[in-house]
Amino acid sequence: MPVNLTPPVAAQLLPVAGVSLGIAAANIKRENRKDLLVMQLCDGARVAGVFTKNRFCAAPVIVAREHLAQPDGIRALLVNTGNANAGTGEQGMNDARTTCAALAGLLGCKASQILPFSTGVIMEPLPVNKITAGLPGAVTNMREDNWLDAAQAIMTTDIVAKAISRQVTIDGVTITITGIAKGSGMIHPNMATMLGYIATDAAIAQPLLQAMVSEAANRSFNCITVDGDTSTNDALMLIATGKSVLHEIKAADSHAGKALQLVITEVATNLAQAIVRDGEGATKFITVQVEGGRDEDECKQIGYAIARSPLVKTAFFASDPNLGRILAAIGYAGIDDLDVAALKLYLDEVLVAENGGRAASYVEEEGQRIMQQSDITIRVVLNRGAVNATLWTCDFSYDYVKINASYRS
Amino acid sequence: MPVNLTPPVAAQLLPVAGVSLGIAAANIKRENRKDLLVMQLCDGARVAGVFTKNRFCAAPVIVAREHLAQPDGIRALLVNTGNANAGTGEQGMNDARTTCAALAGLLGCKASQILPFSTGVIMEPLPVNKITAGLPGAVTNMREDNWLDAAQAIMTTDIVAKAISRQVTIDGVTITITGIAKGSGMIHPNMATMLGYIATDAAIAQPLLQAMVSEAANRSFNCITVDGDTSTNDALMLIATGKSVLHEIKAADSHAGKALQLVITEVATNLAQAIVRDGEGATKFITVQVEGGRDEDECKQIGYAIARSPLVKTAFFASDPNLGRILAAIGYAGIDDLDVAALKLYLDEVLVAENGGRAASYVEEEGQRIMQQSDITIRVVLNRGAVNATLWTCDFSYDYVKINASYRS
Repeated sequence: MPVNLTPPVAAQLLPVAGVSLGIAAANIKRENRKDLLVMQLCDGARVAGVFTKNRFCAAPVIVAREHLAQPDGIRALLVNTGNANAGTGEQGMNDARTTCAALAGLLGCKASQILPFSTGVIMEPLPVNKITAGLPGAVTNMREDNWLDAAQAIMTTDIVAKAISRQVTIDGVTITITGIAKGSGMIHPNMATMLGYIATDAAIAQPLLQAMVSEAANRSFNCITVDGDTSTNDALMLIATGKSVLHEIKAADSHAGKALQLVITEVATNLAQAIVRDGEGATKFITVQVEGGRDEDECKQIGYAIARSPLVKTAFFASDPNLGRILAAIGYAGIDDLDVAALKLYLDEVLVAENGGRAASYVEEEGQRIMQQSDITIRVVLNRGAVNATLWTCDFSYDYVKINASYRS
Repeated sequence: MPVNLTPPVAAQLLPVAGVSLGIAAANIKRENRKDLLVMQLCDGARVAGVFTKNRFCAAPVIVAREHLAQPDGIRALLVNTGNANAGTGEQGMNDARTTCAALAGLLGCKASQILPFSTGVIMEPLPVNKITAGLPGAVTNMREDNWLDAAQAIMTTDIVAKAISRQVTIDGVTITITGIAKGSGMIHPNMATMLGYIATDAAIAQPLLQAMVSEAANRSFNCITVDGDTSTNDALMLIATGKSVLHEIKAADSHAGKALQLVITEVATNLAQAIVRDGEGATKFITVQVEGGRDEDECKQIGYAIARSPLVKTAFFASDPNLGRILAAIGYAGIDDLDVAALKLYLDEVLVAENGGRAASYVEEEGQRIMQQSDITIRVVLNRGAVNATLWTCDFSYDYVKINASYRS
């Protein structure tokens, strides 16, 4: 079950002027569940995004990148769940283009003004006919206030829908930011089996929009791991409709730029953490904080060695303070000149290890007490620099194996 | 249960002249089980080894490296199971030295002529008194023909003991090679929670002995993974007693050097594969063969991305041909210029994917049939070079989680 994750409530999700959402049940993988989402954007809306770095990236990722590079402007995003259209070769490319063309026909725009996204099982042909048959139902049903339905329509193995809204006042104008995301397995940075869509009614210059989504991704979706597998389909998209009366924001270091970045990153972080809390089979939410490193890379390298280790993750599942496994993970993280005698390991506020071994003050009962919590922080203080990094992960349970051993059945 | 792994039979394990083995039950972690092994070597025996690259390497690893660098020659190896003496700081170093001194006293040699090895739980103090109390029993009980007992005495979560003998005739002289190993979790190259000892009665010059053990490790223990965790304690030691009447072997490229290397590598490979077959919770033995790469590094990089992926491993556990997960792993292996349309993926002899997607000839029934086997080969043909690499791994089951969630109980 999700770890301390409250399902979003429709009333708390704020419409973003200029974004309309249409949902349909197209029977892509299962009957009678929402599996198709159309996000229609107003004229003049701008879109920027970051995508998976997987070399086997899915057809829709390739097509979405192409379409984003067109000058005409994006008019809609089309998302299906139940099939990833990945590892599908030329046919997959054709299928992605066909669904874009079908939606463009309904909306009266060019196919290149549609961004396609798919999530679900890999290496099976996209059921194009089901999607095109479902599109009219989604399009005739467009509303600005159904973000919760939208969040539900993009779920795969997610148990809880992920959605959040924030508002910020800039120069006296209230700006709204609403985001949804999906993902709970194949989660590792760059990106994850993860789709995220964040929309704001602010007007943001295109270059800044791209910088903002990259910055938000680096502080959020690129700081999580469930199983270390980087998916073929991941994408985080940032939409700025410009419907607010606030002036256009152009500079990252302007007052408005900084204020908006902060809230967008907060929304992205909230969604990313929700993905981990809903990680496949998760029973614990674990924050890995690496402090005092020379640079961010080495902090993340050590953090991910811990966060990915099946031995660490199964120990947390069992609430077993077998904390030497964390030391072992730090040791094999690949920092060649790491002085293990100089570092300190904490579990929450409890000092566990120092001087290369167990701390004299550490008693197992304290470790045991913290291991039984559902939210736990592993803190590694390297004492070799001034840089910190924070990652989030979950434990590794029977249910992870169960979910992934029977994913397609 | 171990996958197609027959327990060794005492009668098939050949004594190596110059190596005597003494075993004791020292109650280190559990009562009444063999947990202490002394391998006494004849005068003039030579020893070389490779050790874990984990920065948090255990005290005995540090001490063994120091002692190997001494000029006096090694007279005995001392191995305990039940406690790894890792993450134990200065006290751990003192404890390792104390056990060496105790054994040296019994054997009438210097403490620096003893190599210590420990395996088991991390970050708990070594029960030195139990070990020193157990040593006289081991020493008074030395025999040349109890390799099976020795293999059993070093087991931790292993279900089956790992031991094998081979003989090779070089220039008319029969040379014997016998090896034992342990390990089944925290298994990943450089090295693994793995201890391996291979002894031969050949005479081998010291520099060649070191080269031979490195070469054997690179082709065997450095080609396996169970869970991606590199242990703090791993070691593979090669012992050459020189008791055979064969001339001393000095050159790797001599007839005798090549012949012996081949058999030593075969023994090491057999032991390494046995570790994977007995991998924690394993139900399938999976060979990952990456062909047509530009260099060995990229072949291994892709092979390990597949072999480590929890999603791939759970699919194999379920006999579910969700083979897109293998493509995803290839895609995130980090080969930036990889042309995914050029590669082919096979499961045993069945072509699964080509041209960036599912092969036209592939039918799921064929994939299903192979997934149900207990021995399976994943073959990736990259078509970008002439280099191949082969790795071995196992699947990821409920029992992996179970074993590691309750390891200390």
